[in-house]
Parts: sequence; structure tokens; C-alpha cells
Amino acid sequence: MSAGGNDGTKDGSADRAGFAASSEERHRERMQRKKELIDRKIAQATIERGVLVVNTGNGKGKSSSGFGMLARSLGHGFKCAVVQFIKGSFSTGEEAFFRRFEELDYHVMGEGFTWETQDKERDIRAAQSAWAIAAKMMADPGYDFVLLDELNIALAHRYVALDDVLAAVAARPERQHVVITGRGAPDALIEAADTVTEMRVIKHAFKAGIKAQKGIEL
Amino acid sequence: MSAGGNDGTKDGSADRAGFAASSEERHRERMQRKKELIDRKIAQATIERGVLVVNTGNGKGKSSSGFGMLARSLGHGFKCAVVQFIKGSFSTGEEAFFRRFEELDYHVMGEGFTWETQDKERDIRAAQSAWAIAAKMMADPGYDFVLLDELNIALAHRYVALDDVLAAVAARPERQHVVITGRGAPDALIEAADTVTEMRVIKHAFKAGIKAQKGIEL
Repeated sequence: MSAGGNDGTKDGSADRAGFAASSEERHRERMQRKKELIDRKIAQATIERGVLVVNTGNGKGKSSSGFGMLARSLGHGFKCAVVQFIKGSFSTGEEAFFRRFEELDYHVMGEGFTWETQDKERDIRAAQSAWAIAAKMMADPGYDFVLLDELNIALAHRYVALDDVLAAVAARPERQHVVITGRGAPDALIEAADTVTEMRVIKHAFKAGIKAQKGIEL
Repeated sequence: MSAGGNDGTKDGSADRAGFAASSEERHRERMQRKKELIDRKIAQATIERGVLVVNTGNGKGKSSSGFGMLARSLGHGFKCAVVQFIKGSFSTGEEAFFRRFEELDYHVMGEGFTWETQDKERDIRAAQSAWAIAAKMMADPGYDFVLLDELNIALAHRYVALDDVLAAVAARPERQHVVITGRGAPDALIEAADTVTEMRVIKHAFKAGIKAQKGIEL
């Protein structure tokens, strides 16, 4: 939004041109036009259904954004579920925090990163049992919000079949929101999603030699 | 990470070339090299101090990622603070959720979006009193984690002075983490930050006519 941007209609701007409107008046007019534009967009957005959100890219914030949406959903009294497909060393904070809520089912695949375990067969079994839990939740109209954290990693390794995920997404209850995170989201999943954000690295503290620490995503 | 990628060193690869290693063995070797590389990077990252994280860009997830980091920080038992510089219509879920935690100070500027109020003087006063609270928290070593949600919007409108923010960031307690969100982060703030992520829109449900709904970031 540039300071001089005209976000709304131009009706009447010629009439006003001769007036030396004060900065305050100009601000009010600009904001009034912006409000009209936004109100119109809100009025046009009438479809009410659960959405599929995908957070991907190499930057930070994919998982933490999913957990932020989870917090918001719990705040609205939604029945929520989380399946973490990759348990990172620094996910213990989220787990400690969210496990205390009764209205939340929290499942962790619990086998560490694949380069920690170095045991492909075990990873495949773990990913597939995590997916079985996820699929069950997505089929259950009792859940309003399902977070599938780092599922894209399991898809990239082909530990979980993309077709199974697409079928579960398409067949889920109409009002259910699903959030899928992880770098390298497959094209077909992006195609199926309603909202997709790419988190891009601009700067990364870890690469600058700063130690990973509790509570923060470097 | 490509399936055939060599993430680690190449030592010994010629010796192994003649062997018909099983897929399982190749996987283990590849993951072993990846683990060595990652362990080396972790060993090199030795600086322990609070970091400044900036989430910017036009995509979704900037605020929700900040709230996800807040949840994680609370999970680690950190003393946390939030100042929301713009109260959006759909931030009530976060507020309802997070206000129940005693270890968290939660402040909302509480004046709606600037295009809702259309009163520049009132917006400036509200932003400046929100900033006064934020500055106080950033000066207090009792706070481990401070989230300044949508501060970048207040900076873009020049309702809060960039120099004041840069000074407060530089002078804050050494171990304090600060997360600043909002589109249009100023260059000097990006320069001062340790980790910066640009959230890019790939797809946006709201633009496709889907109504904004409780609990989800469209």
C-alpha cells in the first residue's frame, strides 16, 4: 500500500481536486475508499467451508504458523487434532504446551529426523502409522481442525502415498480445516489447496553461527 | 534434498562404487553423511543469545507463526509478552486462547484496522501507547520472549518511529527473543534481524471467494 495509492474507486476525485483538503481529511477519504473496497471484497466472499492450507518453502515459520492457527482454533473452541510426521529436536516446547488441552488430540510420529534414525524401514513404518491416524481424523466430522505437521517431508520421501493424501483431503467433512506443512509440497497438493504460502529465507540466524535455542525458530 | 543428492563429503565413494549396495544400505550411507553434515553445522553454531525474528511479505502466516513461537516459548516456561499493533477481526481466537496464561502479558492496541477507524490522530495515539508498552517490555530482562504483532504496519504508516524500534532492539537484554511481524518490514529492521522470512502468496482462498472464518487464516 503506497502512501498515495488509490485503493478504491475514483468517483468524485475531480470535484475534490480544487480543494486544499487537510492531511487529516485526505487520510480519512483514502481510508474510507479502502474500507469500501475491503467491505466489498468481504461481501463477495460468501463460500463457507473448511479450507486446505499448505505452508511450504525453505524458510522458517511453516510449522509455527500451523501451531499458531491451532492456538486460534482452540481459542474458538474447535475440536482439534495434530499429527507431527517429523519430530524435531526443538518441537518439545509445542508438545509441552499443547498437550495440556483436552479438546486436542496430539500425536507425534516420534522417530526423529530421517537422518537421525538412518533406518529407512523403521521410518516408513512410523510414517505409515502416523498417516493411518491422520486419515482417521480427517474422516471424522467431530474434528474441526487438523494439523498435519511436516507431512510434505513424508510425501517427498514417498513414505506416505500422495494419492492417499489427496483422496483423504477430497473426502473430508465439508467444514473441516486442514493445514499441511513442510518444504517441497507436491504440485498436486498445491493444486488441491485453497491457500498456499511459500516461506522464503531472507536471512537465517543458524547459518550465521547462532545456536538453536529453546522457544525460538531460528 | 534430491533422492540422489550427496549432502556430505565424498570420501570413500570410489571404494564403494564397485559394490552392489542394497537400497537400504545406500539410504543408510546417505543419511549418515547428512547427519554428519548437520551435526557439524550444529557444532559450528555456538553463539547463544536472544534473536530478532522478522516475518514479512504479502502472504499468510506472519502473525500465526509469531503466535506459534509464543506457544512454544510458553511450553518452555518462558515469561512472554505480546503487543498487537493492529487488532484484526479474526484475532479474537488468539486472544481468547492466550489470555488464560498467567506467564503471558497480552496487550491489544484495540482500535481496529486503520481503514476501519478513518481517524488518523486516534490511530497515532493508539500506536504510540502500544509502542510505549512494547518498549517497556523490551527493556525488562524479566521477559524472555516478546511478540510485536503487526508492528511493521505501524512503522509503514510512521505512527511509530523506526529509530525508536531499532534503538530498543539494540538495547534489549541479551537473552531476550523478539519477533516482529507485518508486511513491508523496513530495510533497516531486516538489516538488524537475525532471521527474516518472507511469506509469499502462492494461492489465497479469500480471493477465490471463500469467506473468512473463525480459526483459520485464509
